[in-house]
Amino acid sequence: MTETALIALDWGTSSARAYRVDGHGAVIDERSAALGVQQVRDGAFGAALAALLGDWSTIDAPRIGCGMIGSRQGWIEAPYLACPADLDALASAIAWAPERALAIVPGVICRGDDGIPDVMRGEETQILGALGAGQRRALAVLPGTHSKWASFEDGRILDFATYMTGELHAVLLGHSILGRMAQAPGAAGDAPGAAFDRGLARGLGSGGLAHDIFGARTLALAGELASGDVADWLSGLLIGREIRDARTWAAHRRCDAGPVTVIGSDALTARYARALAQAGIAAERAPAGAAVRGLWAIASQAGLLSAGRTRS
Amino acid sequence: MTETALIALDWGTSSARAYRVDGHGAVIDERSAALGVQQVRDGAFGAALAALLGDWSTIDAPRIGCGMIGSRQGWIEAPYLACPADLDALASAIAWAPERALAIVPGVICRGDDGIPDVMRGEETQILGALGAGQRRALAVLPGTHSKWASFEDGRILDFATYMTGELHAVLLGHSILGRMAQAPGAAGDAPGAAFDRGLARGLGSGGLAHDIFGARTLALAGELASGDVADWLSGLLIGREIRDARTWAAHRRCDAGPVTVIGSDALTARYARALAQAGIAAERAPAGAAVRGLWAIASQAGLLSAGRTRS
Repeated sequence: MTETALIALDWGTSSARAYRVDGHGAVIDERSAALGVQQVRDGAFGAALAALLGDWSTIDAPRIGCGMIGSRQGWIEAPYLACPADLDALASAIAWAPERALAIVPGVICRGDDGIPDVMRGEETQILGALGAGQRRALAVLPGTHSKWASFEDGRILDFATYMTGELHAVLLGHSILGRMAQAPGAAGDAPGAAFDRGLARGLGSGGLAHDIFGARTLALAGELASGDVADWLSGLLIGREIRDARTWAAHRRCDAGPVTVIGSDALTARYARALAQAGIAAERAPAGAAVRGLWAIASQAGLLSAGRTRS
Repeated sequence: MTETALIALDWGTSSARAYRVDGHGAVIDERSAALGVQQVRDGAFGAALAALLGDWSTIDAPRIGCGMIGSRQGWIEAPYLACPADLDALASAIAWAPERALAIVPGVICRGDDGIPDVMRGEETQILGALGAGQRRALAVLPGTHSKWASFEDGRILDFATYMTGELHAVLLGHSILGRMAQAPGAAGDAPGAAFDRGLARGLGSGGLAHDIFGARTLALAGELASGDVADWLSGLLIGREIRDARTWAAHRRCDAGPVTVIGSDALTARYARALAQAGIAAERAPAGAAVRGLWAIASQAGLLSAGRTRS
């Protein structure tokens, strides 16, 4: 078996994923389990890690993880690091689980113009994994339950903003009057259709969001939107509005010149690529594996790669 | 017992309210029951009306109702009437329940600049009840689960827009990550406090809503918002954003010159008055009883008041 130089973990709220990485930073093998921070009871993170790793537990290689595992509800809290944040700052702020079982990358915090904080945990690692040093100032988006838009420059995350787009879509369809008109809420994996584009047009427009979403009901009432299309229309509306608002945000930070880098799953990336194109914003997709590349870079910067796990 | 000239009903989704009205349009007595359209099974609206009215059932006076009772899910559908809509148009479009048991006021529909419809049912009657003929062009707001902002002029509703403010507050606190940080979500009846004002400041600002609401989580995480204040902060944010967006909407319709008339319950009116003041918008409160006054005016216009119920 190829020698393992690093075991890298992307450990989030609902699931955990482990990668065995060789001495060149390439993934040899991966494993995942429904052992997200929310699923682990009574702080039994050591046992959860052993269950996730299985026979990898005996490999003498350093281990590093990012995501909610470093939150207050995780194994050990890795306090948020203030922006701007680069590889060196993240590597220097690593927290250690008991008995050096796992190095944990801190999350990142910034303050909006109104002084209100914003936070990320896990995305900072993906951003640094997707974007190298020497980059000119530009913008990345990580679509999802809580989409993140980040400005970066030359290997540093300058600033970012969270949009609760995915969660709004889920709670409006699941628990509001808009869901009552919807048949079989579409999964994010479905290819976006014509209803997505119609919602998108409204989302990129100039209305108020609490008003615009009501269109899902009135269009259905008026027989102008099929119940099977409500979910897709609302997806287009919310993604369009996120892009419209993030563009304003980015313009204030002078990071809206180049193409936006999209870091995400196939299905969500397809939706965002379509929406960004309709908004007239150039986009490029980050290669897969951003989290592992980020973990590798942070582990390297922290000097972990030269040591086995048992040495310290 | 004072002679009854009209029995007026405000019959909504979750409750029904009946008023006995004298020959001058004054309320003699009122009754209510949890017999909203959603509670009535198998179309048994006749029985529900008898239960609500009790011994008023034998009174030989015309009966008129507004609200969801005229929707597709109600007793009989009173199709939406297009804006602009005045007393005469509403009176002419009354629908009748079987055996002329109840005259039902239609709802109103309008189209936004993007052609997407908006609808109201019940609020049109309150607006016409609160505002008489001869009014110059101005703006009214009916705060609630689905807040309505309407432009009117000389006894006509010109146009309106719905904001899902109250429902967003409920679903975000009840079903999103924001609710997990909140202790004892505040009832709308609680007096707004300092957290409301802080949320309001963000709501009146220039951010994107899907981003700004995330502040409820990050402020709580950072220890800058007590869990007992999350609901109030979010209320301020959502009401502030509604006002900001409705102000833009109204400016496009040139109906933002005079004071805004607020038509609503004591508790919600207090919140909106506070928010409008902070936004620098003059407001005046409509006297209570707008729905009954509107029903009286429509019944009068329709010629119902001169006839008993049994004549037709």
